[in-house]
Amino acid sequence: MTTRLLSPDELEAALRQIGAERYHSQHPFHKLMYQGKLSRAQLQAWALNRYYYQCRIPAKDATLIARLPTPELRRAWRRRLHDHDGDEPNTGGIARWLQLTDGLGLDRDYVVSTAGLLPITRFAVDAYVDIVRDRSILEGIASCLTELFSPTIIAERVGGMLANYDFITAATLDYFRPRLDQAPMDAEFALAYVKQQACTPEQQEAVLAVLRTKCDILWAMLDALHLAYVEPGMIPPGAFVPSGR
Amino acid sequence: MTTRLLSPDELEAALRQIGAERYHSQHPFHKLMYQGKLSRAQLQAWALNRYYYQCRIPAKDATLIARLPTPELRRAWRRRLHDHDGDEPNTGGIARWLQLTDGLGLDRDYVVSTAGLLPITRFAVDAYVDIVRDRSILEGIASCLTELFSPTIIAERVGGMLANYDFITAATLDYFRPRLDQAPMDAEFALAYVKQQACTPEQQEAVLAVLRTKCDILWAMLDALHLAYVEPGMIPPGAFVPSGR
Repeated sequence: MTTRLLSPDELEAALRQIGAERYHSQHPFHKLMYQGKLSRAQLQAWALNRYYYQCRIPAKDATLIARLPTPELRRAWRRRLHDHDGDEPNTGGIARWLQLTDGLGLDRDYVVSTAGLLPITRFAVDAYVDIVRDRSILEGIASCLTELFSPTIIAERVGGMLANYDFITAATLDYFRPRLDQAPMDAEFALAYVKQQACTPEQQEAVLAVLRTKCDILWAMLDALHLAYVEPGMIPPGAFVPSGR
Repeated sequence: MTTRLLSPDELEAALRQIGAERYHSQHPFHKLMYQGKLSRAQLQAWALNRYYYQCRIPAKDATLIARLPTPELRRAWRRRLHDHDGDEPNTGGIARWLQLTDGLGLDRDYVVSTAGLLPITRFAVDAYVDIVRDRSILEGIASCLTELFSPTIIAERVGGMLANYDFITAATLDYFRPRLDQAPMDAEFALAYVKQQACTPEQQEAVLAVLRTKCDILWAMLDALHLAYVEPGMIPPGAFVPSGR
Protein backbone atom coordinates (compact mmCIF):
# COMPACT_ATOMS: atom_id res chain seq x y z
CA MET A 1 0.00 0.00 0.00
CA THR A 2 1.38 3.37 -0.98
CA THR A 3 1.49 6.13 1.57
CA ARG A 4 2.28 8.85 -0.95
CA LEU A 5 -0.51 11.30 -1.71
CA LEU A 6 -1.42 11.10 -5.40
CA SER A 7 -2.38 14.17 -7.38
CA PRO A 8 -6.02 14.09 -8.54
CA ASP A 9 -4.89 13.13 -12.04
CA GLU A 10 -2.60 10.38 -10.73
CA LEU A 11 -5.55 9.08 -8.74
CA GLU A 12 -7.70 9.05 -11.86
CA ALA A 13 -4.96 7.19 -13.74
CA ALA A 14 -4.72 4.62 -10.94
CA LEU A 15 -8.51 4.17 -11.02
CA ARG A 16 -8.48 3.70 -14.78
CA GLN A 17 -5.62 1.20 -14.45
CA ILE A 18 -7.83 -0.90 -12.18
CA GLY A 19 -10.44 -0.93 -14.91
CA ALA A 20 -7.90 -2.01 -17.49
CA GLU A 21 -6.82 -4.93 -15.32
CA ARG A 22 -9.93 -6.05 -13.51
CA TYR A 23 -13.12 -4.90 -15.30
CA HIS A 24 -15.30 -7.78 -16.44
CA SER A 25 -14.77 -6.82 -20.06
CA GLN A 26 -11.72 -9.10 -19.69
CA HIS A 27 -13.79 -12.06 -18.51
CA PRO A 28 -13.95 -15.13 -20.79
CA PHE A 29 -17.75 -15.21 -20.47
CA HIS A 30 -18.02 -11.68 -21.85
CA LYS A 31 -15.74 -12.56 -24.73
CA LEU A 32 -17.80 -15.64 -25.57
CA MET A 33 -20.90 -13.46 -25.46
CA TYR A 34 -19.85 -10.80 -27.91
CA GLN A 35 -18.10 -13.28 -30.17
CA GLY A 36 -21.39 -15.08 -30.69
CA LYS A 37 -20.24 -18.24 -28.96
CA LEU A 38 -22.96 -18.55 -26.38
CA SER A 39 -26.23 -20.41 -26.84
CA ARG A 40 -29.62 -18.79 -26.35
CA ALA A 41 -29.87 -20.76 -23.09
CA GLN A 42 -26.57 -19.33 -21.87
CA LEU A 43 -27.67 -15.81 -22.74
CA GLN A 44 -30.91 -16.48 -20.87
CA ALA A 45 -28.91 -17.45 -17.80
CA TRP A 46 -26.87 -14.26 -18.10
CA ALA A 47 -29.89 -11.98 -18.53
CA LEU A 48 -31.76 -13.70 -15.70
CA ASN A 49 -28.88 -13.32 -13.25
CA ARG A 50 -27.99 -9.82 -14.35
CA TYR A 51 -31.61 -8.83 -13.72
CA TYR A 52 -30.87 -9.07 -10.01
CA TYR A 53 -28.09 -6.53 -10.40
CA GLN A 54 -30.41 -4.21 -12.31
CA CYS A 55 -33.25 -4.45 -9.83
CA ARG A 56 -31.00 -3.74 -6.84
CA ILE A 57 -29.43 -0.63 -8.37
CA PRO A 58 -32.19 1.70 -7.13
CA ALA A 59 -31.82 0.22 -3.64
CA LYS A 60 -28.10 0.93 -3.85
CA ASP A 61 -28.67 4.48 -5.03
CA ALA A 62 -31.44 5.29 -2.56
CA THR A 63 -29.26 3.88 0.23
CA LEU A 64 -26.54 6.31 -0.78
CA ILE A 65 -28.98 9.21 -1.18
CA ALA A 66 -30.18 8.57 2.37
CA ARG A 67 -26.60 9.17 3.54
CA LEU A 68 -25.68 12.17 1.37
CA PRO A 69 -25.54 15.33 3.46
CA THR A 70 -26.81 18.06 1.12
CA PRO A 71 -29.72 18.67 -1.26
CA GLU A 72 -27.14 19.35 -4.02
CA LEU A 73 -25.52 15.92 -3.75
CA ARG A 74 -28.85 14.19 -3.36
CA ARG A 75 -30.27 15.91 -6.43
CA ALA A 76 -27.24 14.85 -8.49
CA TRP A 77 -27.53 11.26 -7.36
CA ARG A 78 -31.33 11.20 -7.70
CA ARG A 79 -30.89 11.16 -11.49
CA ARG A 80 -29.92 7.51 -11.17
CA LEU A 81 -33.27 6.64 -9.60
CA HIS A 82 -34.99 8.18 -12.60
CA ASP A 83 -32.73 6.32 -15.01
CA HIS A 84 -33.42 2.93 -13.49
CA ASP A 85 -37.01 3.20 -12.27
CA GLY A 86 -38.21 5.47 -15.10
CA ASP A 87 -40.74 8.26 -14.90
CA GLU A 88 -43.77 6.29 -16.10
CA PRO A 89 -44.83 2.64 -15.96
CA ASN A 90 -42.68 0.46 -18.22
CA THR A 91 -39.94 3.02 -18.62
CA GLY A 92 -36.47 3.05 -17.11
CA GLY A 93 -33.60 0.63 -16.99
CA ILE A 94 -35.31 -2.17 -15.08
CA ALA A 95 -38.25 -2.21 -17.49
CA ARG A 96 -35.86 -2.25 -20.44
CA TRP A 97 -33.92 -5.10 -18.92
CA LEU A 98 -37.18 -7.05 -18.79
CA GLN A 99 -37.56 -6.36 -22.53
CA LEU A 100 -34.25 -8.17 -22.90
CA THR A 101 -35.33 -11.16 -20.81
CA ASP A 102 -38.66 -11.19 -22.71
CA GLY A 103 -36.77 -11.14 -25.99
CA LEU A 104 -34.70 -14.08 -24.88
CA GLY A 105 -37.88 -16.04 -24.16
CA LEU A 106 -37.79 -15.99 -20.37
CA ASP A 107 -40.97 -15.90 -18.32
CA ARG A 108 -41.19 -12.43 -16.79
CA ASP A 109 -42.70 -13.52 -13.49
CA TYR A 110 -39.92 -16.06 -13.08
CA VAL A 111 -37.28 -13.42 -13.77
CA VAL A 112 -38.82 -10.91 -11.37
CA SER A 113 -39.18 -13.57 -8.68
CA THR A 114 -35.36 -14.00 -8.74
CA ALA A 115 -36.06 -17.61 -7.80
CA GLY A 116 -33.65 -18.97 -10.38
CA LEU A 117 -30.63 -16.85 -9.46
CA LEU A 118 -27.25 -18.36 -8.93
CA PRO A 119 -26.49 -17.89 -5.23
CA ILE A 120 -23.17 -16.24 -6.12
CA THR A 121 -25.10 -13.59 -8.05
CA ARG A 122 -27.11 -12.75 -4.97
CA PHE A 123 -24.07 -12.65 -2.70
CA ALA A 124 -22.10 -10.46 -5.09
CA VAL A 125 -24.91 -7.97 -5.74
CA ASP A 126 -25.84 -7.78 -2.07
CA ALA A 127 -22.18 -7.06 -1.31
CA TYR A 128 -22.45 -4.03 -3.57
CA VAL A 129 -25.49 -2.67 -1.75
CA ASP A 130 -23.74 -3.36 1.57
CA ILE A 131 -20.70 -1.33 0.51
CA VAL A 132 -22.85 1.70 -0.14
CA ARG A 133 -24.65 1.25 3.16
CA ASP A 134 -21.71 0.45 5.41
CA ARG A 135 -18.58 2.15 4.12
CA SER A 136 -17.80 5.84 3.90
CA ILE A 137 -19.80 7.99 1.52
CA LEU A 138 -16.59 8.52 -0.43
CA GLU A 139 -16.21 4.77 -0.91
CA GLY A 140 -19.88 4.43 -1.75
CA ILE A 141 -19.51 6.96 -4.52
CA ALA A 142 -16.21 5.46 -5.71
CA SER A 143 -17.80 2.02 -5.95
CA CYS A 144 -19.86 3.34 -8.87
CA LEU A 145 -16.78 4.23 -10.90
CA THR A 146 -16.99 1.04 -12.93
CA GLU A 147 -19.31 3.20 -15.02
CA LEU A 148 -16.11 4.78 -16.35
CA PHE A 149 -15.45 1.54 -18.16
CA SER A 150 -18.94 0.56 -19.26
CA PRO A 151 -19.22 2.30 -22.65
CA THR A 152 -16.61 -0.05 -24.10
CA ILE A 153 -18.17 -3.22 -22.74
CA ILE A 154 -21.62 -2.09 -23.87
CA ALA A 155 -20.37 -1.33 -27.38
CA GLU A 156 -18.74 -4.76 -27.60
CA ARG A 157 -21.80 -6.47 -26.19
CA VAL A 158 -24.37 -4.73 -28.38
CA GLY A 159 -22.31 -4.88 -31.56
CA GLY A 160 -21.32 -8.49 -31.05
CA MET A 161 -24.76 -9.67 -30.04
CA LEU A 162 -26.55 -8.00 -32.94
CA ALA A 163 -23.99 -9.35 -35.41
CA ASN A 164 -23.76 -12.87 -34.03
CA TYR A 165 -27.16 -13.95 -32.72
CA ASP A 166 -30.04 -13.96 -35.18
CA PHE A 167 -32.59 -14.19 -32.35
CA ILE A 168 -31.47 -10.86 -30.88
CA THR A 169 -32.92 -7.62 -32.24
CA ALA A 170 -32.05 -4.00 -31.58
CA ALA A 171 -35.29 -3.63 -29.59
CA THR A 172 -34.25 -6.47 -27.32
CA LEU A 173 -31.10 -4.53 -26.53
CA ASP A 174 -32.89 -1.22 -25.86
CA TYR A 175 -31.53 -1.29 -22.33
CA PHE A 176 -28.04 -0.43 -23.42
CA ARG A 177 -28.71 2.57 -25.67
CA PRO A 178 -29.44 5.19 -22.97
CA ARG A 179 -26.71 3.73 -20.79
CA LEU A 180 -24.18 4.98 -23.31
CA ASP A 181 -25.12 8.54 -22.29
CA GLN A 182 -26.14 7.97 -18.68
CA ALA A 183 -23.10 6.03 -17.51
CA PRO A 184 -20.48 8.57 -18.65
CA MET A 185 -22.47 11.46 -17.16
CA ASP A 186 -22.82 9.63 -13.86
CA ALA A 187 -19.20 8.49 -13.92
CA GLU A 188 -17.99 12.02 -14.57
CA PHE A 189 -19.84 13.29 -11.51
CA ALA A 190 -18.53 10.49 -9.31
CA LEU A 191 -14.98 10.85 -10.62
CA ALA A 192 -14.93 14.60 -9.97
CA TYR A 193 -16.24 13.99 -6.45
CA VAL A 194 -13.66 11.33 -5.73
CA LYS A 195 -10.77 13.34 -7.15
CA GLN A 196 -11.78 16.27 -4.98
CA GLN A 197 -12.64 14.43 -1.77
CA ALA A 198 -9.96 11.74 -1.54
CA CYS A 199 -7.42 14.04 0.08
CA THR A 200 -5.29 11.69 2.14
CA PRO A 201 -3.28 8.61 1.12
CA GLU A 202 -5.64 6.53 3.26
CA GLN A 203 -8.72 7.88 1.50
CA GLN A 204 -7.11 7.36 -1.89
CA GLU A 205 -6.21 3.79 -1.01
CA ALA A 206 -9.78 3.19 0.21
CA VAL A 207 -11.13 4.53 -3.08
CA LEU A 208 -8.84 2.30 -5.13
CA ALA A 209 -9.65 -0.69 -2.94
CA VAL A 210 -13.39 -0.26 -3.27
CA LEU A 211 -13.14 0.01 -7.05
CA ARG A 212 -11.16 -3.24 -7.07
CA THR A 213 -13.89 -4.82 -4.94
CA LYS A 214 -16.58 -3.53 -7.28
CA CYS A 215 -14.71 -5.04 -10.22
CA ASP A 216 -14.48 -8.29 -8.24
CA ILE A 217 -18.26 -8.20 -7.79
CA LEU A 218 -18.91 -7.90 -11.53
CA TRP A 219 -16.25 -10.50 -12.26
CA ALA A 220 -17.70 -12.96 -9.74
CA MET A 221 -21.09 -12.68 -11.43
CA LEU A 222 -19.59 -13.85 -14.73
CA ASP A 223 -17.50 -16.49 -12.95
CA ALA A 224 -20.68 -17.96 -11.50
CA LEU A 225 -22.35 -17.98 -14.92
CA HIS A 226 -19.32 -19.57 -16.54
CA LEU A 227 -19.07 -22.30 -13.93
CA ALA A 228 -22.79 -23.11 -14.03
CA TYR A 229 -23.62 -22.70 -17.71
CA VAL A 230 -20.39 -22.94 -19.76
CA GLU A 231 -17.83 -25.16 -18.18
CA PRO A 232 -17.89 -27.44 -16.35
CA GLY A 233 -21.62 -26.66 -16.39
CA MET A 234 -22.36 -27.32 -12.75
CA ILE A 235 -25.74 -25.72 -12.06
CA PRO A 236 -26.27 -25.36 -8.31
CA PRO A 237 -29.44 -26.77 -6.73
CA GLY A 238 -32.44 -24.51 -7.33
CA ALA A 239 -30.82 -22.33 -9.98
CA PHE A 240 -32.27 -21.74 -13.44
CA VAL A 241 -32.13 -24.78 -15.69
CA PRO A 242 -32.60 -23.86 -19.35
CA SER A 243 -35.42 -25.80 -20.99
CA GLY A 244 -34.26 -28.51 -23.33
CA ARG A 245 -31.34 -29.49 -21.13
CA MET B 1 -55.18 -4.54 21.75
CA THR B 2 -58.02 -5.55 19.48
CA THR B 3 -57.79 -8.81 17.62
CA ARG B 4 -60.75 -8.05 15.35
CA LEU B 5 -59.96 -7.28 11.74
CA LEU B 6 -61.10 -3.76 10.89
CA SER B 7 -62.57 -2.91 7.52
CA PRO B 8 -60.39 -0.50 5.51
CA ASP B 9 -62.74 2.36 6.39
CA GLU B 10 -62.74 1.44 10.06
CA LEU B 11 -58.95 1.41 9.93
CA GLU B 12 -58.96 4.87 8.38
CA ALA B 13 -61.31 6.10 11.09
CA ALA B 14 -59.04 4.67 13.77
CA LEU B 15 -56.03 6.37 12.18
CA ARG B 16 -57.85 9.69 12.04
CA GLN B 17 -58.89 9.29 15.65
CA ILE B 18 -55.22 9.04 16.62
CA GLY B 19 -54.64 12.33 14.87
CA ALA B 20 -57.52 13.95 16.72
CA GLU B 21 -56.11 12.84 20.05
CA ARG B 22 -52.35 12.97 19.65
CA TYR B 23 -51.31 15.21 16.76
CA HIS B 24 -49.15 18.15 17.87
CA SER B 25 -51.82 20.61 16.78
CA GLN B 26 -53.08 20.00 20.35
CA HIS B 27 -49.75 20.96 21.93
CA PRO B 28 -49.66 24.12 24.08
CA PHE B 29 -46.57 25.36 22.20
CA HIS B 30 -48.43 25.23 18.88
CA LYS B 31 -51.36 27.11 20.40
CA LEU B 32 -49.06 29.81 21.78
CA MET B 33 -47.46 30.05 18.34
CA TYR B 34 -50.57 30.69 16.31
CA GLN B 35 -52.14 32.85 18.99
CA GLY B 36 -49.22 35.25 18.68
CA LYS B 37 -48.00 34.59 22.21
CA LEU B 38 -44.44 33.57 21.40
CA SER B 39 -41.50 35.94 21.21
CA ARG B 40 -39.27 36.20 18.17
CA ALA B 41 -36.62 34.33 20.18
CA GLN B 42 -39.03 31.48 20.87
CA LEU B 43 -39.99 31.29 17.20
CA GLN B 44 -36.28 31.23 16.35
CA ALA B 45 -35.83 28.24 18.66
CA TRP B 46 -38.76 26.50 17.02
CA ALA B 47 -37.54 27.12 13.45
CA LEU B 48 -33.98 26.13 14.34
CA ASN B 49 -35.03 22.85 15.89
CA ARG B 50 -37.61 22.06 13.26
CA TYR B 51 -34.89 22.52 10.62
CA TYR B 52 -33.42 19.23 11.76
CA TYR B 53 -36.71 17.50 11.03
CA GLN B 54 -36.83 19.10 7.57
CA CYS B 55 -33.26 18.21 6.68
CA ARG B 56 -33.67 14.56 7.71
CA ILE B 57 -36.85 14.04 5.70
CA PRO B 58 -34.98 13.14 2.48
CA ALA B 59 -32.86 10.65 4.44
CA LYS B 60 -36.07 9.13 5.77
CA ASP B 61 -37.62 8.97 2.30
CA ALA B 62 -34.52 7.63 0.56
CA THR B 63 -34.18 5.01 3.29
CA LEU B 64 -37.71 3.88 2.52
CA ILE B 65 -37.17 4.02 -1.25
CA ALA B 66 -34.15 1.75 -0.81
CA ARG B 67 -36.49 -0.84 0.72
CA LEU B 68 -39.47 -0.52 -1.63
CA PRO B 69 -39.69 -3.55 -3.90
CA THR B 70 -41.00 -2.17 -7.19
CA PRO B 71 -40.26 0.71 -9.58
CA GLU B 72 -43.91 1.76 -9.22
CA LEU B 73 -43.71 2.25 -5.47
CA ARG B 74 -40.30 3.87 -5.69
CA ARG B 75 -41.51 6.31 -8.34
CA ALA B 76 -44.48 7.30 -6.18
CA TRP B 77 -42.29 7.85 -3.15
CA ARG B 78 -39.56 9.63 -5.12
CA ARG B 79 -41.86 12.64 -5.45
CA ARG B 80 -41.05 13.41 -1.83
CA LEU B 81 -37.34 13.72 -2.60
CA HIS B 82 -38.19 16.29 -5.26
CA ASP B 83 -40.47 18.18 -2.87
CA HIS B 84 -37.84 18.48 -0.16
CA ASP B 85 -34.56 18.72 -2.08
CA GLY B 86 -35.99 20.66 -5.04
CA ASP B 87 -35.02 20.38 -8.67
CA GLU B 88 -32.58 23.30 -8.78
CA PRO B 89 -30.33 25.01 -6.24
CA ASN B 90 -32.31 26.93 -3.61
CA THR B 91 -35.59 25.22 -4.40
CA GLY B 92 -37.46 22.62 -2.40
CA GLY B 93 -38.67 22.36 1.16
CA ILE B 94 -35.31 22.52 2.91
CA ALA B 95 -34.30 25.68 1.04
CA ARG B 96 -37.66 27.23 1.85
CA TRP B 97 -37.27 26.33 5.51
CA LEU B 98 -33.98 28.23 5.48
CA GLN B 99 -35.93 31.24 4.13
CA LEU B 100 -37.95 30.98 7.32
CA THR B 101 -34.89 30.81 9.58
CA ASP B 102 -33.34 33.70 7.58
CA GLY B 103 -36.53 35.69 8.02
CA LEU B 104 -36.41 35.11 11.74
CA GLY B 105 -32.87 36.47 11.83
CA LEU B 106 -30.96 33.25 12.44
CA ASP B 107 -27.49 32.73 11.00
CA ARG B 108 -27.85 30.21 8.21
CA ASP B 109 -24.55 28.43 8.83
CA TYR B 110 -25.48 28.00 12.47
CA VAL B 111 -28.86 26.54 11.53
CA VAL B 112 -27.38 24.14 8.97
CA SER B 113 -24.68 23.05 11.42
CA THR B 114 -27.46 21.79 13.75
CA ALA B 115 -25.06 22.69 16.58
CA GLY B 116 -27.74 24.45 18.60
CA LEU B 117 -30.36 21.71 18.53
CA LEU B 118 -32.09 20.54 21.63
CA PRO B 119 -30.91 16.97 22.19
CA ILE B 120 -34.52 15.79 22.40
CA THR B 121 -35.09 17.14 18.88
CA ARG B 122 -32.24 15.01 17.59
CA PHE B 123 -33.40 11.90 19.41
CA ALA B 124 -36.98 12.28 18.24
CA VAL B 125 -36.14 12.95 14.59
CA ASP B 126 -33.57 10.16 14.51
CA ALA B 127 -36.22 7.84 15.93
CA TYR B 128 -38.37 8.65 12.89
CA VAL B 129 -35.61 7.75 10.44
CA ASP B 130 -34.94 4.58 12.43
CA ILE B 131 -38.59 3.51 12.17
CA VAL B 132 -38.45 3.71 8.41
CA ARG B 133 -35.17 1.81 8.33
CA ASP B 134 -35.93 -0.89 10.87
CA ARG B 135 -39.63 -1.67 10.90
CA SER B 136 -41.75 -3.21 8.17
CA ILE B 137 -42.29 -1.29 4.96
CA LEU B 138 -45.97 -1.09 5.89
CA GLU B 139 -45.08 0.61 9.18
CA GLY B 140 -42.58 2.87 7.41
CA ILE B 141 -45.30 4.07 5.07
CA ALA B 142 -47.86 4.37 7.86
CA SER B 143 -45.47 6.52 9.90
CA CYS B 144 -45.93 9.25 7.29
CA LEU B 145 -49.68 9.42 7.83
CA THR B 146 -49.37 12.44 10.10
CA GLU B 147 -49.52 14.23 6.75
CA LEU B 148 -53.25 13.51 6.90
CA PHE B 149 -53.47 16.04 9.69
CA SER B 150 -51.03 18.67 8.52
CA PRO B 151 -53.26 20.96 6.41
CA THR B 152 -55.13 22.07 9.53
CA ILE B 153 -52.02 22.77 11.58
CA ILE B 154 -50.40 24.59 8.66
CA ALA B 155 -53.47 26.74 8.14
CA GLU B 156 -53.53 27.64 11.84
CA ARG B 157 -49.81 28.29 11.90
CA VAL B 158 -49.66 30.45 8.76
CA GLY B 159 -52.84 32.36 9.47
CA GLY B 160 -51.95 32.95 13.12
CA MET B 161 -48.35 33.90 12.47
CA LEU B 162 -49.17 36.39 9.72
CA ALA B 163 -51.90 37.97 11.82
CA ASN B 164 -50.02 38.11 15.10
CA TYR B 165 -46.32 38.72 14.43
CA ASP B 166 -45.41 41.89 12.59
CA PHE B 167 -41.88 40.60 11.86
CA ILE B 168 -43.23 37.65 9.85
CA THR B 169 -44.08 38.09 6.17
CA ALA B 170 -45.77 35.80 3.69
CA ALA B 171 -42.39 35.24 1.97
CA THR B 172 -40.91 34.02 5.24
CA LEU B 173 -43.63 31.39 5.38
CA ASP B 174 -43.19 30.25 1.76
CA TYR B 175 -42.33 26.79 3.04
CA PHE B 176 -45.88 26.02 3.98
CA ARG B 177 -47.69 27.01 0.79
CA PRO B 178 -46.72 24.02 -1.41
CA ARG B 179 -47.08 21.69 1.58
CA LEU B 180 -50.84 22.36 1.48
CA ASP B 181 -50.92 20.49 -1.85
CA GLN B 182 -48.03 18.08 -1.36
CA ALA B 183 -49.00 16.69 2.02
CA PRO B 184 -52.57 15.66 1.11
CA MET B 185 -51.37 14.04 -2.15
CA ASP B 186 -48.68 12.11 -0.29
CA ALA B 187 -51.02 11.23 2.55
CA GLU B 188 -53.64 9.95 0.11
CA PHE B 189 -51.11 7.59 -1.46
CA ALA B 190 -49.88 6.35 1.92
CA LEU B 191 -53.41 5.94 3.27
CA ALA B 192 -54.53 3.93 0.23
CA TYR B 193 -51.46 1.71 0.58
CA VAL B 194 -52.03 1.14 4.29
CA LYS B 195 -55.76 0.44 3.89
CA GLN B 196 -54.95 -2.13 1.22
CA GLN B 197 -51.91 -3.77 2.79
CA ALA B 198 -52.82 -3.95 6.47
CA CYS B 199 -54.77 -7.17 6.10
CA THR B 200 -54.45 -8.80 9.50
CA PRO B 201 -55.34 -7.54 12.99
CA GLU B 202 -51.61 -7.61 13.82
CA GLN B 203 -50.70 -5.48 10.81
CA GLN B 204 -53.51 -3.06 11.58
CA GLU B 205 -52.38 -2.75 15.18
CA ALA B 206 -48.80 -2.17 14.01
CA VAL B 207 -50.00 0.58 11.69
CA LEU B 208 -51.98 2.26 14.45
CA ALA B 209 -49.07 1.91 16.87
CA VAL B 210 -46.55 3.47 14.51
CA LEU B 211 -48.83 6.43 13.84
CA ARG B 212 -49.10 6.94 17.60
CA THR B 213 -45.32 6.82 17.82
CA LYS B 214 -44.97 9.31 14.99
CA CYS B 215 -47.38 11.64 16.79
CA ASP B 216 -45.28 11.16 19.93
CA ILE B 217 -42.19 12.21 17.96
CA LEU B 218 -43.77 15.46 16.81
CA TRP B 219 -45.20 16.06 20.28
CA ALA B 220 -41.83 15.45 21.96
CA MET B 221 -40.24 18.06 19.70
CA LEU B 222 -42.68 20.70 20.96
CA ASP B 223 -42.34 19.44 24.55
CA ALA B 224 -38.60 20.02 24.32
CA LEU B 225 -39.12 23.53 22.98
CA HIS B 226 -41.67 24.33 25.64
CA LEU B 227 -39.44 23.12 28.45
CA ALA B 228 -36.37 24.95 27.19
CA TYR B 229 -37.83 28.18 25.87
CA VAL B 230 -41.28 28.75 27.43
CA GLU B 231 -41.55 27.29 30.88
CA PRO B 232 -39.68 26.68 33.02
CA GLY B 233 -37.16 27.85 30.43
CA MET B 234 -34.42 25.33 31.14
CA ILE B 235 -32.11 25.43 28.14
CA PRO B 236 -29.87 22.36 28.12
CA PRO B 237 -26.09 22.82 27.89
CA GLY B 238 -24.97 23.58 24.33
CA ALA B 239 -28.41 24.33 22.94
CA PHE B 240 -29.37 27.57 21.18
CA VAL B 241 -29.49 30.57 23.48
CA PRO B 242 -31.42 33.46 21.90
CA SER B 243 -29.40 36.67 21.82
CA GLY B 244 -30.47 39.21 24.36
CA ARG B 245 -31.27 36.64 27.03
